[in-house]
Amino acid sequence: MSQPASEKAYIRFVSVENMMRLIHHIGIETMLRDLTLTIENDFRRWNDFDKTPRVASHSRDGVIELMPASDGTTYAFKYVNGHPKNMAEGLQTVTAFGLLADVASGYPVLLTEMTLLTALRTAATSAMAARHLAPRNAKTMAIIGNGAQAEFQALAMKAVAGIESVRLYDIDAHATRKAARNLAGSGLRITMCKTGQEAVEGAEIVTTCTADKQFATILTDNMIGPGIHINAIGGDCPGKTELHRDILMRSDIFVEYPPQTRIEGEIQQLSLDHPVHELWQVISGSTEGRTSERQITLFDSVGFAIEDFSALCYIKERIEGTDLFEKLDIIADPDDPRDLYGMLARARR
Amino acid sequence: MSQPASEKAYIRFVSVENMMRLIHHIGIETMLRDLTLTIENDFRRWNDFDKTPRVASHSRDGVIELMPASDGTTYAFKYVNGHPKNMAEGLQTVTAFGLLADVASGYPVLLTEMTLLTALRTAATSAMAARHLAPRNAKTMAIIGNGAQAEFQALAMKAVAGIESVRLYDIDAHATRKAARNLAGSGLRITMCKTGQEAVEGAEIVTTCTADKQFATILTDNMIGPGIHINAIGGDCPGKTELHRDILMRSDIFVEYPPQTRIEGEIQQLSLDHPVHELWQVISGSTEGRTSERQITLFDSVGFAIEDFSALCYIKERIEGTDLFEKLDIIADPDDPRDLYGMLARARR
Repeated sequence: MSQPASEKAYIRFVSVENMMRLIHHIGIETMLRDLTLTIENDFRRWNDFDKTPRVASHSRDGVIELMPASDGTTYAFKYVNGHPKNMAEGLQTVTAFGLLADVASGYPVLLTEMTLLTALRTAATSAMAARHLAPRNAKTMAIIGNGAQAEFQALAMKAVAGIESVRLYDIDAHATRKAARNLAGSGLRITMCKTGQEAVEGAEIVTTCTADKQFATILTDNMIGPGIHINAIGGDCPGKTELHRDILMRSDIFVEYPPQTRIEGEIQQLSLDHPVHELWQVISGSTEGRTSERQITLFDSVGFAIEDFSALCYIKERIEGTDLFEKLDIIADPDDPRDLYGMLARARR
Repeated sequence: MSQPASEKAYIRFVSVENMMRLIHHIGIETMLRDLTLTIENDFRRWNDFDKTPRVASHSRDGVIELMPASDGTTYAFKYVNGHPKNMAEGLQTVTAFGLLADVASGYPVLLTEMTLLTALRTAATSAMAARHLAPRNAKTMAIIGNGAQAEFQALAMKAVAGIESVRLYDIDAHATRKAARNLAGSGLRITMCKTGQEAVEGAEIVTTCTADKQFATILTDNMIGPGIHINAIGGDCPGKTELHRDILMRSDIFVEYPPQTRIEGEIQQLSLDHPVHELWQVISGSTEGRTSERQITLFDSVGFAIEDFSALCYIKERIEGTDLFEKLDIIADPDDPRDLYGMLARARR
């Protein structure tokens, strides 16, 4: 008979099922607003964080990444893959899970699914950027690429940035119909478009979230008029971009963490010394966001570990007092910490 | 009512409880032998692996590390902490868990506790090195530092390298008594010693596995006579060493992965160009191991990600067809991969 495990031996685990229940419990738009505020608070204290570009393992068909961040009290990391070809095989392009640990002891405290949570935090980060960079009173957005991320983007821009109309376009009309169907009843006015050009007409915010793992040109220069805010989500690893270089040359570019974005973002098309602004500085007020009506702003988003840190901390707080987690016996915790072997030996009896 | 999750949505999870059952099911000495062979096979194909030094997040009291490795087909990583002060608070100094994923899809397939598994794979790696580096027919080992790792080291050296006698020493006599008690009945002849000097008397293999996070001198030069194999386990992060520099200067030094050991191992005391041998080259036959009876060999072990890769693959294989795992709902896997939002929306009903 083995000894009963102590409380320290258990970490909380939020399954996909429980994450879905939590999202509905909170309400998706409320959660997107909460996440925006949580991420904003952490971006404001940017210098508290131990930051590194994510650690990527590239293979022919995709990438597996580990994204750690720590504020000296709490440590977080996310495992995330990106495999564009997965879709053809009925698999998710991006799946993820994440972990929080206590820096003082090194003990993990929370493990959670993050496929859904990544979609939410990515959308919340986009909306946070749009609030600082989009034209005042923007009401219409275009979404080019209507895959797994699209609806989350639309709802975050509605909940956080006041968007009322969404213009959808995807090279696959099925994807557009799927997004339109899912957004019916959301309160957003939805328009299905036949071309990217049609989608951007009248849009003040243009979001690109396609999944091809290659240099692609989702937006060409002539599609982007003055005053537009571009929210570029899909170009997020080396060799994967969505915008024509000419657009970048006309834009003021805002990024999360330059050492990572230079390798992974749209700006991999530019020279290493091309000027970029750091979003956290805009949020903390030390750099200006949008300064004129005709300026083109570009949020070259690749996803950064601090956003996951924020999202994980939010989940940890929100599951407190609920039954929306299980306990996972993943930490061996013998009574005498030096007696790991004794714990094992006693388990045989 | 949410749709039932597909098989792809589940990964196998081996809890601490199930890991203990698996170890007893296989038998600990058999498992240590198996792990030695598995690690040896992977060291032999060293160049198949995508290798990086582990990604460490250091704090005042310890370190949290992520250790990824991939052979192009399977991806593995381990989360592991090292917090020497934990022991005083009744916590493990080292806790760990690990994951295997399929490189082609990026989908995780196995999550397992690795506190116990790390102790086993570390001991197996030590025994593997000893088989190539220790004097022929070595029968006696000293273990200095009788904490959580000690018994595993003793049993691996017995099972793999033919050790019959173990001489134990720790600055805390309680730890020595604990190890002696645990090893009673193992078939090993156990001697409890009052000093490090006494422990090394007559020992052909000297293992150091102490946990202080600072430069310490567990072995001084006069303690190490000719012909000894030193298995240095405890010096495994920047600022943490166990051996006097003079010993290093008299030894032929063997390491796992030089870019990592230069930062973390005993050799952080030496110049960056001090010659070291790579253990994988000894195992694959391209470098000689021990070449003379009077040579002092030192395995400056810090633990490398490929050893965890091997251990994880072994567990994955051995739980097949058993009930020693649970299924974890950690991968969101909608029927239509682009319809993540639809999966979430349907879960509300």
